Amino acid sequence: LVREAEIIPVRIAVRNMVAGSMAKRFGVEEGTPLPRSIVEYYWKNDEFNDPMVTEEHITAFGWAAPQDIDDMLALSLRINDYLCGLFYSAGLKLVDFKLEFGRSYDENGEMRIIIADEISPDTCRLWDVETLKKLDKDRFRHDMDDIAEAYQEVARRLGVLPTNGPDDVSETKIMQ
Amino acid sequence: LVREAEIIPVRIAVRNMVAGSMAKRFGVEEGTPLPRSIVEYYWKNDEFNDPMVTEEHITAFGWAAPQDIDDMLALSLRINDYLCGLFYSAGLKLVDFKLEFGRSYDENGEMRIIIADEISPDTCRLWDVETLKKLDKDRFRHDMDDIAEAYQEVARRLGVLPTNGPDDVSETKIMQ
Repeated sequence: LVREAEIIPVRIAVRNMVAGSMAKRFGVEEGTPLPRSIVEYYWKNDEFNDPMVTEEHITAFGWAAPQDIDDMLALSLRINDYLCGLFYSAGLKLVDFKLEFGRSYDENGEMRIIIADEISPDTCRLWDVETLKKLDKDRFRHDMDDIAEAYQEVARRLGVLPTNGPDDVSETKIMQ
Repeated sequence: LVREAEIIPVRIAVRNMVAGSMAKRFGVEEGTPLPRSIVEYYWKNDEFNDPMVTEEHITAFGWAAPQDIDDMLALSLRINDYLCGLFYSAGLKLVDFKLEFGRSYDENGEMRIIIADEISPDTCRLWDVETLKKLDKDRFRHDMDDIAEAYQEVARRLGVLPTNGPDDVSETKIMQ
């Protein structure tokens, strides 16, 4: 199902542990647990390198309305709870993930905030619960090998590996 | 009067118009008015270039407690109102300024959040209301001349130029 949506130029990152840019920004070791899930906002603008912003910037510059932000935040936290449970049952820790949003209008013209991008190992950090092995985009970014195998491992654990075999998954992911 | 204070490693910037790092960060022209005063938090850490942070980072990493942040925010907004009035009466627009804070304990051991740094043309952006001429730190940063004269002009307009003459002001400022 493909639905049209007005894209909101704000990305939300939900973080359950320190990793990636947060580790670099504050000099905190990757894997440090956070006392609670932290939400960060980024302005989606390539020219300015997607800077981190606050709710005050978002409303002052008109990128989203206060109600949009409330909806995006509530949706992000529910998705975080759901995905943490889903991935934990597959032996994976959801370290952090990013979400993008849009405004969609139903048949009555009522606006709803919806997720407007994929949720996948390209947008999530997923570590093995026991070994802390990275099974996500960082394998690619850090030039580790086995990226296709890692993504297939996530799909296999979630029981969603396509029936026509792992080659299919690996191609789809590598082509992105 | 010098009082001991535990320094809080968080700096607040209050912005009434777009200028400086905000103009660069978002590609917005200097002097663009903001729909309301915006407060930004920065983690005071030279090694990591004083990154902008949110209240969530501040409490998660223990740099300040939620109550400290509330007190710092309320104090910042009151100071902004006061200084906007003070400078406006001297023909100056308060574009933005930075504040640093500490915890101080009174004789009953009660903690209070206090301002723990100077408020001066080194920490404020001040523009002439009519000509928009910069009479602040940006004269120094942008290698404009007349920095001593600009600072003296601010002191003169506020009626606080020392009686022993302008040389005294210029020396104090240039030595910093």
